[in-house]
Amino acid sequence: MTLPNHFTLLATDGAARTGRLTTRHGVVRTPAFMPVGTAGAMKGVHWREVREAGSDIVLGNTYHLMLRPGAERIAALGGLQRFTGWNGPMLTDSGGFQVMSLSELRKLDENAVTFRSHIDGARIELSPERSIEVQRLLGSDIAMQLDECIRLPAERGDIERAMRLSLRWAERSKRAFETAPEGDMLFGIVQGGDVPELRQVSARGIADIGFHGYAIGGLAVGEPQAVMLGMIEATVPHLPGDRPCYLMGVGTPEDLLEAVGRGIDMFDCVMPTRNGRHGVAFTRFGQINLRNARHADDPRPLDESSAWPSTRDISRAYLHHLVKSGETLGAMLLSEINIAYYQRLMQDIREAVSKGAFAEFRERTRTAWAQGDIAPR
Amino acid sequence: MTLPNHFTLLATDGAARTGRLTTRHGVVRTPAFMPVGTAGAMKGVHWREVREAGSDIVLGNTYHLMLRPGAERIAALGGLQRFTGWNGPMLTDSGGFQVMSLSELRKLDENAVTFRSHIDGARIELSPERSIEVQRLLGSDIAMQLDECIRLPAERGDIERAMRLSLRWAERSKRAFETAPEGDMLFGIVQGGDVPELRQVSARGIADIGFHGYAIGGLAVGEPQAVMLGMIEATVPHLPGDRPCYLMGVGTPEDLLEAVGRGIDMFDCVMPTRNGRHGVAFTRFGQINLRNARHADDPRPLDESSAWPSTRDISRAYLHHLVKSGETLGAMLLSEINIAYYQRLMQDIREAVSKGAFAEFRERTRTAWAQGDIAPR
Repeated sequence: MTLPNHFTLLATDGAARTGRLTTRHGVVRTPAFMPVGTAGAMKGVHWREVREAGSDIVLGNTYHLMLRPGAERIAALGGLQRFTGWNGPMLTDSGGFQVMSLSELRKLDENAVTFRSHIDGARIELSPERSIEVQRLLGSDIAMQLDECIRLPAERGDIERAMRLSLRWAERSKRAFETAPEGDMLFGIVQGGDVPELRQVSARGIADIGFHGYAIGGLAVGEPQAVMLGMIEATVPHLPGDRPCYLMGVGTPEDLLEAVGRGIDMFDCVMPTRNGRHGVAFTRFGQINLRNARHADDPRPLDESSAWPSTRDISRAYLHHLVKSGETLGAMLLSEINIAYYQRLMQDIREAVSKGAFAEFRERTRTAWAQGDIAPR
Repeated sequence: MTLPNHFTLLATDGAARTGRLTTRHGVVRTPAFMPVGTAGAMKGVHWREVREAGSDIVLGNTYHLMLRPGAERIAALGGLQRFTGWNGPMLTDSGGFQVMSLSELRKLDENAVTFRSHIDGARIELSPERSIEVQRLLGSDIAMQLDECIRLPAERGDIERAMRLSLRWAERSKRAFETAPEGDMLFGIVQGGDVPELRQVSARGIADIGFHGYAIGGLAVGEPQAVMLGMIEATVPHLPGDRPCYLMGVGTPEDLLEAVGRGIDMFDCVMPTRNGRHGVAFTRFGQINLRNARHADDPRPLDESSAWPSTRDISRAYLHHLVKSGETLGAMLLSEINIAYYQRLMQDIREAVSKGAFAEFRERTRTAWAQGDIAPR
């Protein structure tokens, strides 16, 4: 069954695209970067700042939310948008990835993955059907199918087994989603590790089942960037071009720029907030480590040409002091600064694609990153 | 020598007063509550929120700032207001209190207190003259004299020795401040522990030396509230009534209300941010512990009648979830909510005193606190 299409392609420039995805909670401009609000909160950043930074959509982690405060509780409180006060478009993952990385005593079979909660040790079964049920209770605008994501490097046999299981779970996820209200979306996920042929088989299989959108999973799990980009190239041509394509868990600004150039429309990553907590700022000069002593006496801001107030107005000396002192405000400011940088990059990318100038923009941006930070003084 | 008076008394109601203190960085409405930005940052709260919550003035800790990033560095960067971006009135303490509570291997003699930095072990001497020098390098609007603050309970002999040393240090502090530019202020500090006669001797001695304003130190160090209030009553009548009177390190909302009723004009305390980090909100219903399971399913805000958005719009269920999950956003929101509550209380106090209705306001506020939180549902 063909599902309705909520994605409108506005312009293309080579493989790069720009468009709009319409959700029940608002429109998402693509290419879109989704900051990650793991357990119903963006670490160190107020929701209003996430919005003001230019974020159209955020990601919530099903695994964390189902364990605490619980999906049924969030449903009773009016859903995740109302619970958190974000009140904008929200995508939830299936929970599978975190089960693999965070929980204990997990067991995976044809039916489901069973695990113990890392919070209270409770035994929990997550099947494709339960994952969809949980995501509908959370009230997400875009749900993800449950899949099996394996770490790389891995044996081809293991990669293929996980890919085929993910295909069968894709069918079950779609069936479980049939009663969802009009406007809600379900994305299928392409697996296949670092094997181009398996990526192709998976992409075609997922496309045959038919989803509102498509995701490429199982990347950014330790492989080199070139492998990741090769897998995108091996996958995108086999997915329906009129639907959004989401690269899960990626990445650095460089990754985003390269992936957009290969047809990706959506991204999510914890990097802006995680690196911010570790004292690192993303800027048009590349990454800047505020722990570095060269900033201790520097009254200049990170980037005086930035439109984001904290990037433009706060001195490097103050940020250095906050980071060195372990002050929460340092993590707060750098997380906000980084989300704003990512969103400004996405905005610039959308404009460049609209104008047919993406290649030039990519070159110019790469050059600026390569030149590095302004000279110390 | 009589120092210029920057304080204007606008109204009195019994012993309670309201006025304005004019600093180089703006006007402070009194009674005033100063949130504490220990090391040049308010823990978990953006400066714009501190301002929006109604704070006219904040306190910076000389001890922390002289150790890191260093007073000379802050001076080179344009002073504390510019360094932090707060850009409003700022009071600094003398550093003495934290030397006593945080540093190691301290040694106190007539000349100075010598200690080892808790950050890098460096040996540092803090004399009355150096404390003033550091505070002038920081660029504070209101500097405090170096004093010796001893813990209670203590022997009368020890209390008197510390009080007399503080008087001699007050004279040296004033002399060291003589070259400060017009508009900067220096406050003397009354000591004397829990002995009314010693408080009286100290107050008269400090008043004879003559300062821009006067502080009562050495309270809120473990004694019962009744003792603290008794010491205020024993002190205030012996201080010049045309100058601001600052009660250091106090306190709970109840403490503030009682102290204003005894003639206090200024306060500082870490309680709004510290309790916020521990999941406790200050409200017109008294203190509310958001860790309590009764809030887990409660969609109601802390106080639907509050004018502060986070207090009025965010559900108890969400705050409970954030606190239980250890999310930074929980500490951020509760710290901001608490500063806003304190500042709203001060605003209400100022209005009540202006209208000659302080006694009624105090009674009504106490009754609301005593009634406690709204019923669970």
